[in-house]
Amino acid sequence: MEFQDFSAHAAVGKLAALARAPHDLTAAGGLTAERISAMKTSGCGFDLLYATQRVTPAVLDALQELADEAGLIAAYAAMRQGAVLNRIQGYASENRQVLHTACRDVFDDPPMAPEASAKARRELEKLRIFLDELASGAIVNAEGKPFTTMVQVGIGGSDLGPRALYMALKAYALCGRSARFIANVDPDDVAEVLSGLDLSRTLFNVVSKSGSTLETLTNEELVRARIVAAGLDPALHLVAVTGEGSPMDDANKYLRSFYMEDYIGGRYSATSMVGLVTLGFVLGFEAVMEILRGAHEVDRAAMEPDIRANIPLLLALLGIWNHNFLGHATVAVLPYSQALSRFPAHLQQCDMESNGKSVTRQGKTVGWKTGPVVWGEPGTNGQHAFYQLIHQGTEVVPVEFIGFRHSQYGLDLRVAGTGSQQKLLANMLAQSLALALGKQDDNPVRCFPGNRPNSILIADRLTPQIMGGLLAIYEHRIAFQGFCWNINSFDQEGVQLGKILATRLLDLIAGRMAAKGSSALEESMLQQAGIR
Amino acid sequence: MEFQDFSAHAAVGKLAALARAPHDLTAAGGLTAERISAMKTSGCGFDLLYATQRVTPAVLDALQELADEAGLIAAYAAMRQGAVLNRIQGYASENRQVLHTACRDVFDDPPMAPEASAKARRELEKLRIFLDELASGAIVNAEGKPFTTMVQVGIGGSDLGPRALYMALKAYALCGRSARFIANVDPDDVAEVLSGLDLSRTLFNVVSKSGSTLETLTNEELVRARIVAAGLDPALHLVAVTGEGSPMDDANKYLRSFYMEDYIGGRYSATSMVGLVTLGFVLGFEAVMEILRGAHEVDRAAMEPDIRANIPLLLALLGIWNHNFLGHATVAVLPYSQALSRFPAHLQQCDMESNGKSVTRQGKTVGWKTGPVVWGEPGTNGQHAFYQLIHQGTEVVPVEFIGFRHSQYGLDLRVAGTGSQQKLLANMLAQSLALALGKQDDNPVRCFPGNRPNSILIADRLTPQIMGGLLAIYEHRIAFQGFCWNINSFDQEGVQLGKILATRLLDLIAGRMAAKGSSALEESMLQQAGIR
Repeated sequence: MEFQDFSAHAAVGKLAALARAPHDLTAAGGLTAERISAMKTSGCGFDLLYATQRVTPAVLDALQELADEAGLIAAYAAMRQGAVLNRIQGYASENRQVLHTACRDVFDDPPMAPEASAKARRELEKLRIFLDELASGAIVNAEGKPFTTMVQVGIGGSDLGPRALYMALKAYALCGRSARFIANVDPDDVAEVLSGLDLSRTLFNVVSKSGSTLETLTNEELVRARIVAAGLDPALHLVAVTGEGSPMDDANKYLRSFYMEDYIGGRYSATSMVGLVTLGFVLGFEAVMEILRGAHEVDRAAMEPDIRANIPLLLALLGIWNHNFLGHATVAVLPYSQALSRFPAHLQQCDMESNGKSVTRQGKTVGWKTGPVVWGEPGTNGQHAFYQLIHQGTEVVPVEFIGFRHSQYGLDLRVAGTGSQQKLLANMLAQSLALALGKQDDNPVRCFPGNRPNSILIADRLTPQIMGGLLAIYEHRIAFQGFCWNINSFDQEGVQLGKILATRLLDLIAGRMAAKGSSALEESMLQQAGIR
Repeated sequence: MEFQDFSAHAAVGKLAALARAPHDLTAAGGLTAERISAMKTSGCGFDLLYATQRVTPAVLDALQELADEAGLIAAYAAMRQGAVLNRIQGYASENRQVLHTACRDVFDDPPMAPEASAKARRELEKLRIFLDELASGAIVNAEGKPFTTMVQVGIGGSDLGPRALYMALKAYALCGRSARFIANVDPDDVAEVLSGLDLSRTLFNVVSKSGSTLETLTNEELVRARIVAAGLDPALHLVAVTGEGSPMDDANKYLRSFYMEDYIGGRYSATSMVGLVTLGFVLGFEAVMEILRGAHEVDRAAMEPDIRANIPLLLALLGIWNHNFLGHATVAVLPYSQALSRFPAHLQQCDMESNGKSVTRQGKTVGWKTGPVVWGEPGTNGQHAFYQLIHQGTEVVPVEFIGFRHSQYGLDLRVAGTGSQQKLLANMLAQSLALALGKQDDNPVRCFPGNRPNSILIADRLTPQIMGGLLAIYEHRIAFQGFCWNINSFDQEGVQLGKILATRLLDLIAGRMAAKGSSALEESMLQQAGIR
């Protein structure tokens, strides 16, 4: 793969010229019924409505040209086939493949990366057996009773994606099964999660690829101490998800171990054992396979080179239009679904850790904007919160709405002639139109400038399969953008400096390091913060 | 009060000139132990460390001049005394006082706004009696058993602030008492919250100032239907917080009603009955008074005109420096405390709904930036998520850290010579230093540009009193910024257009409106979204 600088593409100049007069959605005829029906892309159970973006056919053509020039589909295909894309040419870097798609490439024969998919199948089979043994009573606690709760102990990618998926799908939980999550090194987090739990009926799922994540090991120690204090045997209550051969790969310490490979980045690991063990415990193995099937369908559909027929690719390019050409610093992801309440937090990690970079794949400093700030909360809640700024503030915030035609629980009530789910959807569509159209008024406080770009992604119902697909749509939106910006979306060197400084401060606190010249600053920080 | 345009102040020109060469924290001597100890402001149990902001004494002097020219302290004092600050001169507007501070001005004699504080005292006395009756067994369920759970039904300000405070303080819950929250019109939200609840032991606290919030009324209907279906009497299970005389002020329908006044904005209502009824149920009346005492102490301290001795004022001006002069579009609030996990969401509302405005107090369009995008998640979680972009991305994100020297639960374990709470603090301080200092490296991927502005707000422990103080610090930071930008931080006209359009779409869905020319767009939106 030859990656070129973003600024080197001819389409970039065309787009910059087009951005001088972007489409005016507030003008007469700027947003019509015809435009709404024309600007729609469907696939894998999803419809993407993007008439409320500030794009014209000419802009879409130029974005298509950009996608072609940057070789986005070829890069994506290479990723699925196991190219070493996690690298910087000429400099020390992780030099790894990027194969989260192989985790779900277990339906086609042959798969695109056969060795990785064979490993994924092996772990899935281990998971199936484990879940069967839990169901049959072959695995029970010391008193012979079944386990009811799984507590996942992990942080970052070992927490946010699995937690977001669990919250999205817990409406489908097996009877009597639930999950909780411990991430923060804050001891109050552990204390709060464990309060009220029956430890004798609880399995802890400790997740760390390296087997050496400080927060996770600290929390595992806290958990083990509590299990012992309750008179229980930790080896019967802990399972591990880790790299094969890591310090955590120890059959004496864990009831069962599941493996993850180094070619699966933490933030892309929800469809590996990192997410599937807890999801399988709560939802059952069938639901796990549905999640994988939904993701895999999107993985395949994302090979389509026509941007108007490829949802993740189109989302990626619309994002680039809004960020690099219209100059908007952030993007809000606003799901009209309480079940997706933590999905924006997962995307925030997946996107910002992937594309918050300033160095090209050739090791040069970029001369263009890379990833935006990603944030969001579920609607309609947000309407009563930050939407004021989105409608009338001086910062323009592009919005990605996500919604579903039907609710999960089916518990609904008609009030004033419509159900809650209809109210939810009507609100989402109304916000999309209001942001685009704006409104003039004699009272300046009641004027809305409009032209606030947004799109709507909608599906029938948030099922395991649709959740898998939604996850994959966003994973690929992010990867396509990273390819286009010529950055490595798969490392995270930016988190290292903080780790090093934290270790030095902890050494100072523990008295392991005398106050030398080099640490006067750290000493002062600790003193002024009142810590020593 | 005479408010002037932000651009009219002489200090604005000085600051713009200073911003051309902001302080370089990465230079030799740019960040020293002396600077850290000099740039510290303490009060009401808090220390603010701001050496890691890109400011010099000259910048601070100019910010002081801006505060003086803009009359920020006079405006704040007028607010506390009941001036009609929620208005736009010459145009129809809410024309209300802004008196959330009066809710906690119940310790001084005389208070600054005697009539409002007298009303607050009256409601507090009603609350004290209600809580006493719950404690003594005078109020019990139909079977004579005590209530254990309060479910607050509200949205926006009637949800985010109370929920954030509940999560922050539930470590101090009375034995057997807890709370839950229903906000979203999404029927799955109600279903999920009610699943597993013993309705016979549950009180529902329905909160709506107007008594007519669509989401809240819909959710109240869902709740009432469930209570009736369980064979219980809703009038014995619901309490109301609403405006006196609103449709919800009905003794036949509610066990008890508490009042809120129209001069308390929803997003500033956590220290009114909107927050205190549920917090009192869970924490007891003493804790309620501690919250109010902490907020009131900050309210008083915020009268100090010296910006170097006034924490909320200094935070406001540092924010203006970063946003208006250094050009950063967002601000991240990152609490190193899992208990504060929802505090950023509350601030997101309070700040963005207050200052996401484009019209001056005189009804002119602003010619300067107003409120930034506010977002955040608790550390250390965020370190494993979006910190990559904060350290190495192309968007510079100013950060406000919040931390505590001691944990709430006291459940901690020493691993590798230090406790979890020490690890948490060391990480926070390390991030502050890393963002400021950056690091050079031969490998471009390991370079950190530094000069990423941040500050640290630290207190001993997150108690009810400190939580009250923290809430007030941020409320006033926001109000000071709004005064400085010459905008009305207390209305929310920007949420109206979406409501109007949503109502039209619901009319279409319910078949109450024929497809006329004016609604072809809405019809198309519904059709393309697959809703009709």
